[in-house]
Amino acid sequence: MNADNWSEQVLEKSGIEAVFLTNDFDDSLQGFDTNVYIPCLRTDDLVFHLAKQDVRDRLEVSTSTSLESITDLRQAVATLFTHFKTNNAKACAISLPPSFSPSTISDGRAKNALQQILTKGTEADASHIEAMARWMFWTITQQCETHQLPFDLMIGVNRRVYPTGVFQGQDLYDSRVSLIQYQEVFNAFPTVTFPISVLASVTNQELASYAWIFPNVVTHGHWWYSNTPTFIEHDTAARLEAVPQTKQIGYYSDMYKLEFALPKFRMYKRILSKVLAERYVIDRNWSEQRAIEFGSIILRGNVETVFDI
Amino acid sequence: MNADNWSEQVLEKSGIEAVFLTNDFDDSLQGFDTNVYIPCLRTDDLVFHLAKQDVRDRLEVSTSTSLESITDLRQAVATLFTHFKTNNAKACAISLPPSFSPSTISDGRAKNALQQILTKGTEADASHIEAMARWMFWTITQQCETHQLPFDLMIGVNRRVYPTGVFQGQDLYDSRVSLIQYQEVFNAFPTVTFPISVLASVTNQELASYAWIFPNVVTHGHWWYSNTPTFIEHDTAARLEAVPQTKQIGYYSDMYKLEFALPKFRMYKRILSKVLAERYVIDRNWSEQRAIEFGSIILRGNVETVFDI
Amino acid sequence: MNADNWSEQVLEKSGIEAVFLTNDFDDSLQGFDTNVYIPCLRTDDLVFHLAKQDVRDRLEVSTSTSLESITDLRQAVATLFTHFKTNNAKACAISLPPSFSPSTISDGRAKNALQQILTKGTEADASHIEAMARWMFWTITQQCETHQLPFDLMIGVNRRVYPTGVFQGQDLYDSRVSLIQYQEVFNAFPTVTFPISVLASVTNQELASYAWIFPNVVTHGHWWYSNTPTFIEHDTAARLEAVPQTKQIGYYSDMYKLEFALPKFRMYKRILSKVLAERYVIDRNWSEQRAIEFGSIILRGNVETVFDI
Repeated sequence: MNADNWSEQVLEKSGIEAVFLTNDFDDSLQGFDTNVYIPCLRTDDLVFHLAKQDVRDRLEVSTSTSLESITDLRQAVATLFTHFKTNNAKACAISLPPSFSPSTISDGRAKNALQQILTKGTEADASHIEAMARWMFWTITQQCETHQLPFDLMIGVNRRVYPTGVFQGQDLYDSRVSLIQYQEVFNAFPTVTFPISVLASVTNQELASYAWIFPNVVTHGHWWYSNTPTFIEHDTAARLEAVPQTKQIGYYSDMYKLEFALPKFRMYKRILSKVLAERYVIDRNWSEQRAIEFGSIILRGNVETVFDI
Repeated sequence: MNADNWSEQVLEKSGIEAVFLTNDFDDSLQGFDTNVYIPCLRTDDLVFHLAKQDVRDRLEVSTSTSLESITDLRQAVATLFTHFKTNNAKACAISLPPSFSPSTISDGRAKNALQQILTKGTEADASHIEAMARWMFWTITQQCETHQLPFDLMIGVNRRVYPTGVFQGQDLYDSRVSLIQYQEVFNAFPTVTFPISVLASVTNQELASYAWIFPNVVTHGHWWYSNTPTFIEHDTAARLEAVPQTKQIGYYSDMYKLEFALPKFRMYKRILSKVLAERYVIDRNWSEQRAIEFGSIILRGNVETVFDI
Repeated sequence: MNADNWSEQVLEKSGIEAVFLTNDFDDSLQGFDTNVYIPCLRTDDLVFHLAKQDVRDRLEVSTSTSLESITDLRQAVATLFTHFKTNNAKACAISLPPSFSPSTISDGRAKNALQQILTKGTEADASHIEAMARWMFWTITQQCETHQLPFDLMIGVNRRVYPTGVFQGQDLYDSRVSLIQYQEVFNAFPTVTFPISVLASVTNQELASYAWIFPNVVTHGHWWYSNTPTFIEHDTAARLEAVPQTKQIGYYSDMYKLEFALPKFRMYKRILSKVLAERYVIDRNWSEQRAIEFGSIILRGNVETVFDI
């Protein structure tokens, strides 16, 4: 594991050609091969934590901007996108709490919110922080439109529900969330592709239905608490039947170590094979070849078309 | 397909003896054999679109009524029911948004609402339109009681979520709906049978439980986004175990063309057979004969008893 | 069945060593062997019906207290716990409506609420009754902490939805409930174990996830409307994968007659065996021995460790 080329060994052994990262907005994106480690702009901090002095400082430094107005803020976001796009970024991403419901916020309203946030930081009224979050989400989506980047939405997590838990063992969820909350943004940005992950299996049918109806909604993997075999199997079976086959990205590993990809993808591939064998080859009398081709586009082909790689 | 007797050929080939229609309230119900094409009064327009001038005009014309008061309105609805009942109607039906929660509305409150609607049309306050919808729903249910007609409730659809979609490709849903919203109406009309369809599989357990407890609630098919094999299988398995066998209508085709019935019913019958084979013949050691009899009552027998045909 | 030792015969035939009761708070707990019929303090009346004169009378009599202040009330609850604990009680239990969300209530607020309740009984404002319920729930949890008793939460039932139904045929549910409502109490009482049952299968994933993250949350059986084979199978499969194996109590019978335990447990054991055979021995290539050991700890071992018997 200490071998100089350990990571290359892991990639080769795992059959991985490239890895999609999620990078902090102020990541320099230097020092690695962006064709193998493909950048993605992670925007949680911008949308939900702009009231923190630290986040605003990082944004000012990384974009060489002084954040005094909505115009400054919009320019800073544009600068980030240019930086990421220049460095081969293939997506923008964010995780969202169940309560979030994006909508347009006028620049006037956003101006008030920013003023409060610049003055009071995290002590600003919740309504201002919420307005700022919505404005920022919308602004980021506009940049996705401009730069033709898919916007990965990971919907449904409540942070720090068990605050004394270990790192990444603190977050849970309220499963009472609906994709109807995203109706306005799906309609407003028909050219932006939204690969969507949902935290709870009870939201999977909505996801499949919205991907069936909205041309720009794509189902995206099996996230976190839904990334266990029983839920993957149930959710996969439902998606295969209801979602156009070009609009399903079967799986991503959500790995924190390079070594995780192999067992995680093997788990998924075993389940995908089970569903295809039982429900297509046996129940529908498909040929094995046809089932394998269907599986391949879900597992790999759609990644290439959706993320343009 | 252009043969004079094409529709008869399709019916015969499909093994269909009769088709349940859903008819606009101002349908003349003339020109077809109502013993083969059985009328059903579809009431969405009356409940949710009475604020539209066009709907009120159609109601006035079809019932020869001038709609100036609550009394006029109640009389018009009664006239529609008499017209439908005289023409062999076997049910009343409506699709309902997840937000709808029926309750009694006093005639006084309804009078105010009607006044606003007659004056302002669709510009009337949302509270008046909502009050009118509840009053109308209740009034229609009273007519179902009077005329001993089942009231088919199709619960959970949001209309025009993707308004630029093709016809019938615009509607989606917020799955956060509960049958508790119908508690008052189920209790108030014990002699009205409510065959209920739910749009999302996550509501299926509630449906099974309510049909278990309320004598007048019947499970009714697998609707729209839940009408795909994986959801049908899961929902059917749950209903067969929890709902009295005389209170389950297994399937309806929801067809828009006569040719759809055959493949749709074949899909359902294959799934019903699978569930009966795996969970009753194998798991419970039932005889095949017993399983077939159970399936037959779900598939056909209950249609006859519930809709009195 | 009239034999003197009928109950002993049933216990022996069923392989039952002991039965967990749920006892009214004013149960004398005399006249039976508390090592075979293990007491459990059922607290629904205290939390949700203290506004009823009858409940307060029973509490005063059973604890020899005059309920005039919050201090009296707290003392009465403490007396009940001592009585139950002295008589071998191994748990406290309560069933909860979907709307309930426990939180701390100051003694000052509780004092106002109690004053209103003592004066107006069930006619007291809903806000006072709600405040009293929250205060009482919290006070009971504190007693669980003091006496090291697990607090069984049965979450999600709406009482008397169909009020003209037969006894125990009146209650239903609104499945729109989330364990996020219990976040504060789980965090505030880290040493109290909460064995949790949920009424609807759609809440099962939340339950599994919360038991995964919170050290003091344990999954507890398959309750009522989720106690049918299809839901048990789906929910069991999900729990086995996601919840630590020491934090799952597979089943309890919820029986009202001693004779119910045998068939109910047989049903569960058959389903547990099916899931272990299909998903562990076949899918994961486990040895049968390993699967049986896993099943045994779920079915029996954890009952002993969680309830300290």
